[in-house]
Amino acid sequence: MTNKDARTPASAQHATSNSSGEEAGKSIGWHKAYVAGSRPDLRVPVRQVHLTNGRSVTLYDTSGPYTDPEADTDVRRGLAPLRENWIVARGDTEEYAGRPVRPEDDGIKHTSPRGGLRNLDAVFPGRPRQPRRGRTGGAVTQLAYARRGEITPEMEFVALRENVAPEVVREEIAAGRAVLPANVNHPEIEPMIIGKRFLVKVNANIGNSAVTSSIEEEVEKMTWATRWGADTVMDLSTGRNIHTTREWVLRNSPVPIGTVPLYQALEKVDGRAEELTWEVYKDTVIEQAEQGVDYMTVHAGVRLPYVPLTANRKTGIVSRGGSIMAAWCLAHHKESFLYEHFEELCEILAAYDVTYSLGDGLRPGSIADANDEAQFAELRTLGELNRIARRFDVQTMIEGPGHVPMHKIKENIDLQQEICDEAPFYTLGPLTTDVAPAYDHITSGIGAAMIAWWGTAMLCYVTPKEHLGLPNRDDVKTGVITYKIAAHAADLAKGHPGAQEWDDALSDARFEFRWEDQFNLALDPDTAREFHDETLPAEPAKTAHFCSMCGPKFCSMKISQDIRREHGGNRAEIEEGMAQKSLEFAATGNRVYLPIAEERS
Amino acid sequence: MTNKDARTPASAQHATSNSSGEEAGKSIGWHKAYVAGSRPDLRVPVRQVHLTNGRSVTLYDTSGPYTDPEADTDVRRGLAPLRENWIVARGDTEEYAGRPVRPEDDGIKHTSPRGGLRNLDAVFPGRPRQPRRGRTGGAVTQLAYARRGEITPEMEFVALRENVAPEVVREEIAAGRAVLPANVNHPEIEPMIIGKRFLVKVNANIGNSAVTSSIEEEVEKMTWATRWGADTVMDLSTGRNIHTTREWVLRNSPVPIGTVPLYQALEKVDGRAEELTWEVYKDTVIEQAEQGVDYMTVHAGVRLPYVPLTANRKTGIVSRGGSIMAAWCLAHHKESFLYEHFEELCEILAAYDVTYSLGDGLRPGSIADANDEAQFAELRTLGELNRIARRFDVQTMIEGPGHVPMHKIKENIDLQQEICDEAPFYTLGPLTTDVAPAYDHITSGIGAAMIAWWGTAMLCYVTPKEHLGLPNRDDVKTGVITYKIAAHAADLAKGHPGAQEWDDALSDARFEFRWEDQFNLALDPDTAREFHDETLPAEPAKTAHFCSMCGPKFCSMKISQDIRREHGGNRAEIEEGMAQKSLEFAATGNRVYLPIAEERS
Repeated sequence: MTNKDARTPASAQHATSNSSGEEAGKSIGWHKAYVAGSRPDLRVPVRQVHLTNGRSVTLYDTSGPYTDPEADTDVRRGLAPLRENWIVARGDTEEYAGRPVRPEDDGIKHTSPRGGLRNLDAVFPGRPRQPRRGRTGGAVTQLAYARRGEITPEMEFVALRENVAPEVVREEIAAGRAVLPANVNHPEIEPMIIGKRFLVKVNANIGNSAVTSSIEEEVEKMTWATRWGADTVMDLSTGRNIHTTREWVLRNSPVPIGTVPLYQALEKVDGRAEELTWEVYKDTVIEQAEQGVDYMTVHAGVRLPYVPLTANRKTGIVSRGGSIMAAWCLAHHKESFLYEHFEELCEILAAYDVTYSLGDGLRPGSIADANDEAQFAELRTLGELNRIARRFDVQTMIEGPGHVPMHKIKENIDLQQEICDEAPFYTLGPLTTDVAPAYDHITSGIGAAMIAWWGTAMLCYVTPKEHLGLPNRDDVKTGVITYKIAAHAADLAKGHPGAQEWDDALSDARFEFRWEDQFNLALDPDTAREFHDETLPAEPAKTAHFCSMCGPKFCSMKISQDIRREHGGNRAEIEEGMAQKSLEFAATGNRVYLPIAEERS
Repeated sequence: MTNKDARTPASAQHATSNSSGEEAGKSIGWHKAYVAGSRPDLRVPVRQVHLTNGRSVTLYDTSGPYTDPEADTDVRRGLAPLRENWIVARGDTEEYAGRPVRPEDDGIKHTSPRGGLRNLDAVFPGRPRQPRRGRTGGAVTQLAYARRGEITPEMEFVALRENVAPEVVREEIAAGRAVLPANVNHPEIEPMIIGKRFLVKVNANIGNSAVTSSIEEEVEKMTWATRWGADTVMDLSTGRNIHTTREWVLRNSPVPIGTVPLYQALEKVDGRAEELTWEVYKDTVIEQAEQGVDYMTVHAGVRLPYVPLTANRKTGIVSRGGSIMAAWCLAHHKESFLYEHFEELCEILAAYDVTYSLGDGLRPGSIADANDEAQFAELRTLGELNRIARRFDVQTMIEGPGHVPMHKIKENIDLQQEICDEAPFYTLGPLTTDVAPAYDHITSGIGAAMIAWWGTAMLCYVTPKEHLGLPNRDDVKTGVITYKIAAHAADLAKGHPGAQEWDDALSDARFEFRWEDQFNLALDPDTAREFHDETLPAEPAKTAHFCSMCGPKFCSMKISQDIRREHGGNRAEIEEGMAQKSLEFAATGNRVYLPIAEERS
């Protein structure tokens, strides 16, 4: 995979925007910019949209160096380790030899030319690196620092990004109401925060499966997803080359990467759930922590006594991790090893600052199963585990459903916030109906917007292929855009400071027929421009004071503007002039209808 | 336009479904069926989905005779006048010569070979017909009948369609909480009802504009929209041949047709709003009532004193009708002629049973303008007009926004229900953010689902082309499907009797890997099947007990099923078996985590 390949999505997009601007003979369009922090190595990327009226709008940017023409990115070398100095400077971590990479890490059974023992360099050609972990065995987590009252560079970065005081960031993390996923072995990330007091975030899932897709595709999907606004990416690979795919994704990812270690652990025991052991699982967690995975989904809430609660469900257990653990519990008639070894797991995660995403293995997979006993029994256990994780200074968020009809959505966020001491909620949709396969980005976008308004901190996207197949490039984009809509709609409803400025800027452009500004401010400038050009391709149409829907005679905005123009063009004057007229009118017969009606009848 | 053309969308779809069934060697798939009423000429169309497990599911069907292979449809002849006998039998209407059709009705200025005076036969080649109206000048509306305690065949038809008692239908109409749009000159429709106690309905807009599109396209868009579930269609044509296009659409439409007469009236005065007069408007309303338009949007709430309230808005007046009336009011500094002549208009509509859709000409066109003084001032006037319409026995619904952030949506429906005596609310979305042009079917689908859950009776769809261009065939389908999702999600949240059966049937099929049943039960079987085949094209995959997302080893539903199988396959037994095991477990150490933790530390 070449440099060029990797930059295709981002660069192409960037070029599009610029060229449109250049055609118009101005530097309009959107450009990468940076907000300087308190130190030279701390600068926060933003998306600067320059408008034709000379103003500019600053938008949150997740696309990483790929959209920066100045940046020299090369996927074989990986991104620059932005946070390395910050991590080293803290002096509480040390490099060490690390766990040797084994063929089975990539699902390779026998030693072979392409299998065999390898070191990280062989896995990834980029700069040699050794894994790092907490020196003392003590927690090296953002939570530990926040509780000690320290504001880390990561926290300052996030504060600038979210337009809040660094102290607010520290407080929210210290209270466990927000997480800042940042493994010490993933120095390439641009720090971001997940919590209800901040902008609602969106996660995009990628990952090859036993059925198809390659390392290149996965890295490309990651850059593509972040290009459109994914705040984190989960690598759910289940096929071959899991270890190597993950390494390439991590070294090139500007956003935190999440995984479900259970999937790889199951690969290591040939997919036989009953052969899973704590040792295999622990080995896999360490393997992934050393690579730099920022958060891990752990289905420790699927306990033996809860499995029977799913027996009468319409769709049983639909979470892969949940069904694997349920199968294990029943095969051995023993309590989950994840539940039994949870504290040991906390010690491991604390040494790398891996954030818990406590999985909802018993989430409902259909409208009929929403908010049932099994789901809420597990949620109570997640609350219990959240308190344990906190004792170990491990950052924690809680995963949520799933399939839930609208009238049962609020109970989910309210219960989760109560039971889990306001830990960040991270939901999959929820889908508000089961009847629209091929449109589940929409059935779930509805539920996602609502539950985010009510306090969910991060939304896991759903693509049009949900329930049907593997998302391709277009599906990933559609899923991300749909979820950015849900997240922003929630930011507006929550009255997030500054959220409405974006809507206002676009609506001003719309009212003033600044078409290029409308396109450049749009969540998806390319498609907005393309749709407009389908009906009115000519360049002049982009400055026309009407659009194709109504044509010149009928454009309501044009008529609104004419009204203003005729009355002086100045809004205040118009209002005064019109008010005057309406007062005259009031004096001469501005009556409610009924008296007139009575006169008539 | 040939018979074949007209039946393409419907027939093609029908064929698809059947063939897939035949491939599987069974008569599975979906088929048109009818539920018999109390009389031979009263049969309600349904969509019958035959499942591979021998069961079948009955779904609401809006597609008309076009999806019935038995039906002999011909767009040049039009649909059979299903209701004609019912209307004639009431004996309260009479045929009359009707208003002569003039060239200007089609926007033709000078007499020409294709212009010139014509009669309806020339406009439409189908069976000759004369317009019909109330004999006595008294109301011939479903509201008048309902208030007199009569249950009409239309009401019985709707009761069967909605699965409720005919008396419920009569009561809701009599109370003004529901409307049954059915112009005596549109006998071709299959009656439907709009009210909060019934299934949430969806309207699709079609209509050529000054810029482009033809009569054939509009008729085809109508059949296409109803094929995917549009409950009503509004013809918003503004260009040439308005009259003729509308005639073709009406004669071939199985669903009620709505219009905005003001658009055609403006065409008759060459688009100069200030030249509009009550006489031109009245002439246009009668012209359209004689053709059979079932409901008309009337912007009588845009009063002179309200116009200044829009002066400081971010996007002024965005309703076409609203801006036209505002321009007229200001040009003449007089109160709206629609408001002044509202009672006279009621008399006209009552004679044809045209339903009012009182337009929200001052609806917000941006997040910033939501729920403002101008919007709610107009709403209070609509409440006043609703009471007047009721005095004249004219059925009435109220139009709503627009652009509204989630936290301001509920206030819209609550105020409307209070001010308008629970008259059906008919909203356009609302869009929950302004930042996603090209995705406004989604930004508005979110708001539509929520406001429908809270009581909105009908949703006007929004397509991906909103704000950008004219919707094409694909956009119409995407808009309708998105809004059917919103409507059904609301039916579920409202606990509408029977609504969840559809979701349950599809989820059962999903859990049991009955892929063909999943496809056939889907809102869009074609796309669901296509997406599945993209990843797993082989026919066997359609019966495979796993899917492409996880592959065989990982399928959670498969694992759930294995769990059940191993434990006897019978849910009760499994539950008992598992419960037994968990009891044993409980006896031997099923403790909450903390004690264990304490032992350890």
